[in-house]
Amino acid sequence: MDHHTQLPTSEVDVVIVGAGPAGLMSNLWLSAFKGVSVRIIDKRTATFYAGTQEVFNSFGFEERVLKIAQPMAEFSFWQPDRNGRIYRSSRTADGPPNMSRFQGAVLHQGYIERFLKDAIKEREGPDVEYGVQPDLHQVDEMIEGDDSHPITLRIRHLSEQESAPSQFGHTRANGLFRSTNFTTSKEEDQAINKIAKAGTQEMIKCKYLFGCDGAHSWIRRQIGVDMEGDQTDFIWGVLDIHPLTDFPDIRSRCSIHSARNGSLMVIPRENELVCLYIQLEDLERNMDGRIDSTKIAPEDILRAAQKIMSPYNLQYDYCDWFTAYQIGQRVSTRYTKFDLVFILGDACHTHSPKAGQGMNVSLMDAYNLGWKIAQVLQRKAPRSILATYEAERRPVAQELIEFDRKWSSLFSGKLEPDFNQAEDGLLKEFKQTFEDAKLFVAGITVTYAPSVLVDETSHQRNHHSSKVLSKTDLAKGIHLGMRIPSYRVLNQADARSCHLQDRLPSNGQLRLLIFAGSMIDLPQRERVLAFADYLLSPLSILNTYTSEYMPLFGIIAVHSGPRTEVELSHFPAPLRKSSEYNNEFVDDHSYLEPFGDAYKNYGVDSIRGYVVLIRPDQYVSWIGDFEDTDKLETFCQGCLRRWPSSPSL
Amino acid sequence: MDHHTQLPTSEVDVVIVGAGPAGLMSNLWLSAFKGVSVRIIDKRTATFYAGTQEVFNSFGFEERVLKIAQPMAEFSFWQPDRNGRIYRSSRTADGPPNMSRFQGAVLHQGYIERFLKDAIKEREGPDVEYGVQPDLHQVDEMIEGDDSHPITLRIRHLSEQESAPSQFGHTRANGLFRSTNFTTSKEEDQAINKIAKAGTQEMIKCKYLFGCDGAHSWIRRQIGVDMEGDQTDFIWGVLDIHPLTDFPDIRSRCSIHSARNGSLMVIPRENELVCLYIQLEDLERNMDGRIDSTKIAPEDILRAAQKIMSPYNLQYDYCDWFTAYQIGQRVSTRYTKFDLVFILGDACHTHSPKAGQGMNVSLMDAYNLGWKIAQVLQRKAPRSILATYEAERRPVAQELIEFDRKWSSLFSGKLEPDFNQAEDGLLKEFKQTFEDAKLFVAGITVTYAPSVLVDETSHQRNHHSSKVLSKTDLAKGIHLGMRIPSYRVLNQADARSCHLQDRLPSNGQLRLLIFAGSMIDLPQRERVLAFADYLLSPLSILNTYTSEYMPLFGIIAVHSGPRTEVELSHFPAPLRKSSEYNNEFVDDHSYLEPFGDAYKNYGVDSIRGYVVLIRPDQYVSWIGDFEDTDKLETFCQGCLRRWPSSPSL
Repeated sequence: MDHHTQLPTSEVDVVIVGAGPAGLMSNLWLSAFKGVSVRIIDKRTATFYAGTQEVFNSFGFEERVLKIAQPMAEFSFWQPDRNGRIYRSSRTADGPPNMSRFQGAVLHQGYIERFLKDAIKEREGPDVEYGVQPDLHQVDEMIEGDDSHPITLRIRHLSEQESAPSQFGHTRANGLFRSTNFTTSKEEDQAINKIAKAGTQEMIKCKYLFGCDGAHSWIRRQIGVDMEGDQTDFIWGVLDIHPLTDFPDIRSRCSIHSARNGSLMVIPRENELVCLYIQLEDLERNMDGRIDSTKIAPEDILRAAQKIMSPYNLQYDYCDWFTAYQIGQRVSTRYTKFDLVFILGDACHTHSPKAGQGMNVSLMDAYNLGWKIAQVLQRKAPRSILATYEAERRPVAQELIEFDRKWSSLFSGKLEPDFNQAEDGLLKEFKQTFEDAKLFVAGITVTYAPSVLVDETSHQRNHHSSKVLSKTDLAKGIHLGMRIPSYRVLNQADARSCHLQDRLPSNGQLRLLIFAGSMIDLPQRERVLAFADYLLSPLSILNTYTSEYMPLFGIIAVHSGPRTEVELSHFPAPLRKSSEYNNEFVDDHSYLEPFGDAYKNYGVDSIRGYVVLIRPDQYVSWIGDFEDTDKLETFCQGCLRRWPSSPSL
Repeated sequence: MDHHTQLPTSEVDVVIVGAGPAGLMSNLWLSAFKGVSVRIIDKRTATFYAGTQEVFNSFGFEERVLKIAQPMAEFSFWQPDRNGRIYRSSRTADGPPNMSRFQGAVLHQGYIERFLKDAIKEREGPDVEYGVQPDLHQVDEMIEGDDSHPITLRIRHLSEQESAPSQFGHTRANGLFRSTNFTTSKEEDQAINKIAKAGTQEMIKCKYLFGCDGAHSWIRRQIGVDMEGDQTDFIWGVLDIHPLTDFPDIRSRCSIHSARNGSLMVIPRENELVCLYIQLEDLERNMDGRIDSTKIAPEDILRAAQKIMSPYNLQYDYCDWFTAYQIGQRVSTRYTKFDLVFILGDACHTHSPKAGQGMNVSLMDAYNLGWKIAQVLQRKAPRSILATYEAERRPVAQELIEFDRKWSSLFSGKLEPDFNQAEDGLLKEFKQTFEDAKLFVAGITVTYAPSVLVDETSHQRNHHSSKVLSKTDLAKGIHLGMRIPSYRVLNQADARSCHLQDRLPSNGQLRLLIFAGSMIDLPQRERVLAFADYLLSPLSILNTYTSEYMPLFGIIAVHSGPRTEVELSHFPAPLRKSSEYNNEFVDDHSYLEPFGDAYKNYGVDSIRGYVVLIRPDQYVSWIGDFEDTDKLETFCQGCLRRWPSSPSL
């Protein structure tokens, strides 16, 4: 690489290629950690679910989403009657009830990207360098040590023409340019400044490289990873419009299976816009059997929609966006090379957009990887935890692809011409698949397998292993490897009601969630005091695993009440820190909000309590009794790194 | 005034003097109306309750308040035991339950002013002209007609020294400068630009003048209005601090009556700050018996607080603000001159800040007056409605002053030296007064008397009058002259649950809230259709009273369900407008949110329904049956002005 020596060269911890949802979420997560340096580049000048909203809330901008997004309440199924006329055959709730305090909602992906950028700015994370493309890449796995930069990347600043390709011959926004409505004038200025650099190159040496560069990922090709899966024959068009119609369910999510003209899905959006997914038939194909999507105009897609919706009328007075695509379901065979280069989001899984899962799963890929990389860079965790990224996220993508294959096929499937409307097998299976998938689609039941970051339960125990560390029978409402659910608790100090998850902001801390049980039961209070003494001892996990930036562990205590019989002074240090009033909670009735019934919902004994270790991404790592400090230490040895200087807390 | 002719002179509809809460709320409200021109000047370079938050929500920024403010959940009463040692004698909920979906909260007034300014900017309202003072004023009541400008105001641009007086010899922020933490750099730039104009004068001719210029109001003196009431002898200090203390209720609102050292109130604020109101004793007095508050330092106030809180410790590591004041309760004798010049907020009522009512009542003064002035300027309403400002708001101030007099006196009162702790009469009355005042303090039970804007009920009827227009027996949960309460309803089109108040944004529209009753009952449907036919007829109120800007009436229909047996197409125009999906609601169970039970809570018959006319400030004007169109017309004749050209809807 001698010829590179003339180029300007800089060093950085992490380079992120691509500034879509996965790239921006990676940038946001890494911005929450001090001392981690990042560059994020993009060569260019959404539906999201309850689980994703819990993450937005943990970064503090969920209220911006709630204010503008269109919540999804109901799903209606439309099908043809005996005469071929469509009618509403049933309705159902859009999502699963009582699993999250948030519900699914629809919002232009550009808004989400805007909110992510604003949150990054608040944390003083780096701006996206637009109009920049990597064109050479090398990984030297032999280079080792905390301070080494084994990855070399050459980047090129593009000309305006290169970074803003023509819009496929259409004057209306489509495909690639979905998000550009929401760039700020500052970003536009930066884009203009970039022109001066057009054509110049530079070298970046980095420790980690994130490929968030989409379905045609350049990084994925560079590390030699293939996609598994297949392309189907179904072609779909998407219209984002302000509709003029007498179709009664235009503001409900619904599916319409027509008798002879294919299927359509209605997804209401913010500001009375509607997104329509429309099956396209009778299209001209190239010699290789593929459709040239650049030849499909919004008028073509509208015509197909009108046929399916007939006898209802459909027109529009504004088209926000459109596209056409051929459905494929594919997952990449690996997610990393040497645990140094990673691919995320569309770069490792592609599928149809109809289940609205693309952005959600991409964001969660980045939310899974970001904190792990940061912990390693901050020397708080060993590199071995990085293997859990692929192990945890690839099964989620596989499950998604499996669901999407079935859902798309049932949605695109032909009804029998002489069907029996009440008992049509395909429609019945379609409805059942929708019901079955609600929890998975909401993204709140994803469960990561045991690893150095998720303890084994006794049920998962290998009979030859003596490693049974977590007591899951203590906590029937909390599951190892799942995100901790949220219930309301009361603040001991001020009687305010809040959701427990609101006390788990995404700041990189691990959490010791201490269900203290009954603080008015003297034997139990002794147990809590003994555990507190352990935590204060010089060799405890608090004092062994720490960091130069902030305490590695956050401590939250919840007792079982009653609140009025307990004083703050009853909580021993480190459960209680003086002049802090937001760490001690109680499961008690509120003056104003509904009772959370947290002990019952978490399935914990109201006298004896228990201790839960929670990862920075709110997934449950370990569960145990107050006496299980040895097991807790063993678990932490597997996933944390002793701080060289071991400063005291 | 000949010598004024050389000065630059301009015309504007409304001049607002003072940019505190009342001035900014006036500016915000007027900014919601097109075609109304405003200038707002200020010579300078808070606790808020549920009712105020309903108004913030109607302007769309309540979520910013909720995110940062400290909600008030609990109030604790502390008193001395037999040995003179303070103890917590009881606790109670801070506010009234189930009266509003919002609860009282505490936040620095600077935040509220910042949010008001941002909301004004969104509506393209005028910036505040800082460093500008009126110094001459003339009202010519003989000048008449829509286009005349009967008020002349001379303003002077102040020098930097004049507009930023020294801080009473203290280096820490106090008194006057409470809000300046939150000015933006843009505002600072403007302030600097003003210096160039220092000393120059100009003339403004305007149609209306708002005096929001505080307790020492220059406008009030100009129009010759006196304050009624008195000054008491009690001196109080205020400390806004980050406390270091072992007092257990430092995060609850509480009162502490000490045995010998006076009283103190704790009000927790955002960011773990606390505001303390402390009774000061043994202070040096001037010859006239008054205290020179400039001689009181934060250390003096802290010492007094320490004595009251003893044996608990109290120190602080940060003092945000402090002041000292002598309690007085006064109301101005009039609120207006000729209904051309008005005074608002502290300019017409002063009282102690301990009940946290000052900003709330000031904001509501402006919220009451703003839309009335705008309707008159837009020629939608006759000038006669302006008399309701003083008629509606002065009684609220009087009630507040009465409460504050009692509350302050009970709070400052001495306990008997040899008191019986369980039965002390003063403390008992103090606690009872607190309970009794909860609804009033929350600001949601304010009731305006009958006027051209609030119909008479049969109970209020004068026996010699035949004018009984409103049928209040139809609506046991809705009261004439009170703000309409909010319950959850479901959107007919998309099954979303929302609060009815969310459909009453502060945009200046009057609302016809149509409880349509049972849409599946054919006789009832005929009644609704007949009412709709009336509304569409050329002489209906919709077509008689209209505006060049937007429909004067917004129409919202709520039927009693079930939702699944009714289609949008069942709603006749104008209850239903094509391609609008946010006007038809139903009282039905939600998939995800709690059931609002709106028909039951509003006290309306689920078959027959009724019609409610709501003012732009959400107060209820008129209630009647579908057949009462003549009564509705009579009522509207009293408060609306026929549009000259009577354009059709």
